[in-house]
Amino acid sequence: MLKAAVIGASGYTGAELAGLIQAHPHLSLAGLYVSESSQDAHKPFSSLYPRWRGVIEQPILPLDDEALSRIHTEADIVLLATTHEVSHDLAAGFLEKGLPVFDLSGAFRVPGEGFYEKFYGFSHQYGDWLGKAAYGLAEWNQEAIKAAQLIAVPGCYPTASLTALKPLQAAGFIADNTKPIISAVSGVTGAGRKASLATSFCEVSFKPYGVLSHRHQPEISHHLDNGVVFQPHLGNFARGILATIYVELKEGVTDEQISNAYHQAYDGQKIVRITDQWPEINDVAGTPFCDLHWAREGNLLIVVSAIDNLLKGAASQAIQCINIHQGFSPVAGLVQE
Amino acid sequence: MLKAAVIGASGYTGAELAGLIQAHPHLSLAGLYVSESSQDAHKPFSSLYPRWRGVIEQPILPLDDEALSRIHTEADIVLLATTHEVSHDLAAGFLEKGLPVFDLSGAFRVPGEGFYEKFYGFSHQYGDWLGKAAYGLAEWNQEAIKAAQLIAVPGCYPTASLTALKPLQAAGFIADNTKPIISAVSGVTGAGRKASLATSFCEVSFKPYGVLSHRHQPEISHHLDNGVVFQPHLGNFARGILATIYVELKEGVTDEQISNAYHQAYDGQKIVRITDQWPEINDVAGTPFCDLHWAREGNLLIVVSAIDNLLKGAASQAIQCINIHQGFSPVAGLVQE
Amino acid sequence: MLKAAVIGASGYTGAELAGLIQAHPHLSLAGLYVSESSQDAHKPFSSLYPRWRGVIEQPILPLDDEALSRIHTEADIVLLATTHEVSHDLAAGFLEKGLPVFDLSGAFRVPGEGFYEKFYGFSHQYGDWLGKAAYGLAEWNQEAIKAAQLIAVPGCYPTASLTALKPLQAAGFIADNTKPIISAVSGVTGAGRKASLATSFCEVSFKPYGVLSHRHQPEISHHLDNGVVFQPHLGNFARGILATIYVELKEGVTDEQISNAYHQAYDGQKIVRITDQWPEINDVAGTPFCDLHWAREGNLLIVVSAIDNLLKGAASQAIQCINIHQGFSPVAGLVQE
Amino acid sequence: MLKAAVIGASGYTGAELAGLIQAHPHLSLAGLYVSESSQDAHKPFSSLYPRWRGVIEQPILPLDDEALSRIHTEADIVLLATTHEVSHDLAAGFLEKGLPVFDLSGAFRVPGEGFYEKFYGFSHQYGDWLGKAAYGLAEWNQEAIKAAQLIAVPGCYPTASLTALKPLQAAGFIADNTKPIISAVSGVTGAGRKASLATSFCEVSFKPYGVLSHRHQPEISHHLDNGVVFQPHLGNFARGILATIYVELKEGVTDEQISNAYHQAYDGQKIVRITDQWPEINDVAGTPFCDLHWAREGNLLIVVSAIDNLLKGAASQAIQCINIHQGFSPVAGLVQE
Repeated sequence: MLKAAVIGASGYTGAELAGLIQAHPHLSLAGLYVSESSQDAHKPFSSLYPRWRGVIEQPILPLDDEALSRIHTEADIVLLATTHEVSHDLAAGFLEKGLPVFDLSGAFRVPGEGFYEKFYGFSHQYGDWLGKAAYGLAEWNQEAIKAAQLIAVPGCYPTASLTALKPLQAAGFIADNTKPIISAVSGVTGAGRKASLATSFCEVSFKPYGVLSHRHQPEISHHLDNGVVFQPHLGNFARGILATIYVELKEGVTDEQISNAYHQAYDGQKIVRITDQWPEINDVAGTPFCDLHWAREGNLLIVVSAIDNLLKGAASQAIQCINIHQGFSPVAGLVQE
Repeated sequence: MLKAAVIGASGYTGAELAGLIQAHPHLSLAGLYVSESSQDAHKPFSSLYPRWRGVIEQPILPLDDEALSRIHTEADIVLLATTHEVSHDLAAGFLEKGLPVFDLSGAFRVPGEGFYEKFYGFSHQYGDWLGKAAYGLAEWNQEAIKAAQLIAVPGCYPTASLTALKPLQAAGFIADNTKPIISAVSGVTGAGRKASLATSFCEVSFKPYGVLSHRHQPEISHHLDNGVVFQPHLGNFARGILATIYVELKEGVTDEQISNAYHQAYDGQKIVRITDQWPEINDVAGTPFCDLHWAREGNLLIVVSAIDNLLKGAASQAIQCINIHQGFSPVAGLVQE
Repeated sequence: MLKAAVIGASGYTGAELAGLIQAHPHLSLAGLYVSESSQDAHKPFSSLYPRWRGVIEQPILPLDDEALSRIHTEADIVLLATTHEVSHDLAAGFLEKGLPVFDLSGAFRVPGEGFYEKFYGFSHQYGDWLGKAAYGLAEWNQEAIKAAQLIAVPGCYPTASLTALKPLQAAGFIADNTKPIISAVSGVTGAGRKASLATSFCEVSFKPYGVLSHRHQPEISHHLDNGVVFQPHLGNFARGILATIYVELKEGVTDEQISNAYHQAYDGQKIVRITDQWPEINDVAGTPFCDLHWAREGNLLIVVSAIDNLLKGAASQAIQCINIHQGFSPVAGLVQE
Repeated sequence: MLKAAVIGASGYTGAELAGLIQAHPHLSLAGLYVSESSQDAHKPFSSLYPRWRGVIEQPILPLDDEALSRIHTEADIVLLATTHEVSHDLAAGFLEKGLPVFDLSGAFRVPGEGFYEKFYGFSHQYGDWLGKAAYGLAEWNQEAIKAAQLIAVPGCYPTASLTALKPLQAAGFIADNTKPIISAVSGVTGAGRKASLATSFCEVSFKPYGVLSHRHQPEISHHLDNGVVFQPHLGNFARGILATIYVELKEGVTDEQISNAYHQAYDGQKIVRITDQWPEINDVAGTPFCDLHWAREGNLLIVVSAIDNLLKGAASQAIQCINIHQGFSPVAGLVQE
């Protein structure tokens, strides 16, 4: 059993990681941590997440010096479910001790001059690690994930979007000088576990946000190698992302070619399911799957993908990355085999 | 007081009409009707809609011959909140007796060879009335609404879409040979009041439907006089529609021109609110308003509109049409003045 | 038109008051206020509550000295939709200027030694006004409401509970030495408009709270003049309260007697509706009504009442109290007549 | 691997059974069946439940003669997730072939003259089997479950109620001649998978139902051996039951005695969790657990229990019964060990 430390275990993504590791055949929990200043420090994990009572009974510990040295000596793997800034600050310390780091924040996803200043509001201090990080889009970057010591697990919207678009881009089907339009909706857990009027039960209401300014737009464009228009919305549900994507195809692309592109990309990849019905949130919420379906009319292709934002959009994709990195079955701990 | 008969009063739209007429300063209810075979016939309206108990206590009557002759002699106005087929069959009878008819179905919205066969599955028998019907998009067709005897109140998605797009089209701002993409979501009441597994509380889940085949696409295109791509989704809420619309602008259109186009169209029109925040469902659900906001980047314009599907998307727009047709204040019974 | 100032206008109850006053035939808004330190001060009301855009366009003003003197000279009525402590501190100032005060907090609801220390955590400084306040349970205390200068509008749970229980208590039907059990559920707006993890969309979950310790228990017992067991729950909906009440009847009470007690209490009172179906939240949410229905088996009576917590449980009951106090129709501005 | 046939696999409970069996270390699916006339016959299970796509890919087969003989020869266990009437008609056939039958309907839960006529509307034809059936309340009837060939898995409300009340009753703590009051709420899946206006997304609203007439009242009373008042409500959530129970204690019962009674009953029983927070739906939905917490004041005890109605209230309790019956770990396939 490989021992995995989860940092940022009080958040929704950290909690999902704890549950997945607990149930994984080859992984065990090497500790649940939060920042020293967190008011959740020293609380039992199950007091924050009572659904895990009797299953995960460890305390959440503050990430003080003692904790760091314990992780350095006892853990085999580090998972960062922390804010972008905290991941940015912490990762190098673990990496330099030789630990593989799986970072679920945005801190190491997009190399490029000025990107972090513009979209994350801080200046990146670890350009070297940023350059060496593998982007953990599990179905696409398996060799890089296997080889890298630092894996930047993709954002939730980029996972849903890239899984739908990369087969088309790889096949050269997207019309030149066009940007696919990604109109997507996320559940409220996407905003994280925190007190906020914006995510109050009384205030949540279907609406657009981040119009023409969301940081996931350049992440998607960069990893697709094609510009996109990305428009997120807040949905009236707790978990899940559904992206409806409008793509202008090159002249002459046939239905069969599209079908082949998707099947070549995903046949045998259990996590991505090419479905014969339109995806919907309830089919993927609480699962590690990404569901895909499409239709076309003339040169317009509509492709829809759906994931659980906390799982395929975060925690279960991190587990996929660990599985790939360690040479386990790619779906170990995720899908019964 | 003008006496208005509501046919199809057991459905969600019919019920909204009943409530609006009851509260209207110049209208009174001349009867609530359902088809003769309806199991709701003879029930008190408030047994179906208990929130109206003590306020609307009339029975819902079957539309038999006696009822028809009562409407012919006693009503001043007829509102059809019936299915497309029933509206198609009933309207001419009232029209020929000289009654103004406000039809909330799709039966008289789109003239054009073969349209009803293709999108509604029936052959239209009343081409003459279809040709004479005014399309009741209240902020745009006031003269026609005033003059016509038959007003075809627009569909819910078309109202949200056209209110957002017509100012751009009228100003000639939509790039040639491009189709705006309308990615929209509707609350579950849009499916009507009926027992169905698809609208079960346990099954409702955010999802696309009607992909490349929804009958509101040609309705929007026809009345916009510009092709559109229209993609509806089902949302996890009871009431409301939000449309996020992606428009490619002609080269050279300025922000100021866009702003002017919207303000010229809607300043002084109380029902359409040009807002300084992005529209959201909770701001319009239960109200007669359409909220509009936009942003642009280069030649891409994103405009978002939100309405209550049962009100501005149906019943309150019908009241707007009556107000215009009768010369009342255009917002009588809808907004306090 | 009587001019009403609303203090605490940024909260859910204050916003409902603003809407009801705006629509009332005999009232107009004399100002919307929040505490000086509120971050909502100087914002347009409609930026907090965009559904009122175009209808209520006043700013929310800080309650500074200038505002106080403006209220003293210009307002005819003061409504306090403030916290218990703020109401306690503010009320006397307005009362001493001769203004009628309608307080929606708990600050003047329950006279009695030590009550405020125990249940509200502060020592009451205005015992005199506390003693003179009328308890604004509109269907029961009309003479007192008419006569008093200070009206303490009841809490939401007490309104639902007392409306159901007072007819039984008045008739002497509750078995001696027994306490009715009130098992009630409230929508999330009952917790007020504030950032809180407990009311996050992601965290709301049906659950009991305030077990054997809720401050509404002594309020109900005091005004019923009979002990009760009161158990609140949080429900997965925004608005409404439903109380299921279990009463042990005295031997020999007949069905007819029960029916008579309810009908004597409420026939002719339009706001309380004795229904022939079991009440449910959707029938009353957004309305000023209280729905009541009961059944009995042997000496056990089950009576269910439902209200909108923000309306009959707060704002619309305050309007009822104003109507009674001023001699308007008791349902003016609430039910169309 | 023991082979389990699931009859009634198209319903919510049947689907949960399929999923639990699929994931169980000692069980495998021996077929998914529906009645011959079902329109779901021959459909792939994953077309009804797309979340299981790629995991459970079997078709749902009609229960015709061929299917029956296949079950007789190939299955080791039969699970009936059918209606009461269908279970009543089918069970004996399997039992007489020697197969153990786990029935999730109400058909074999309550022996007693006239019970089925009164509460289920049919006359029971298999009094012998009814008399021999074990009531599958897993934490209480382990010996009977082990020994019986027919196990009647309890209803959802009875499971929540009896788990909370049996420790008190066994210890003799319930005051003589008093009936605990069970005020409970269920998620909408409790109504089953079917088209119905009552369970429409647009109509679901918190409300009481089955007042003084629900068939689970005699089931609870019979297996508690003490009368109860049982009042169910419909909640605005898909899954889960929460029961708030009011018990009058005998004079002199101490807090310590109550605590001992609960801990003796459930310490070491992993499925029942005595918690230090009040139970809530989200903590148990999607889990096999029953959470319990209580408080007392004088002789009044309030105890709250929460379960997932489809799991501990149906499918996972059936798995507990299989585990006990077969001598597996009692939580095999339910809780990671």
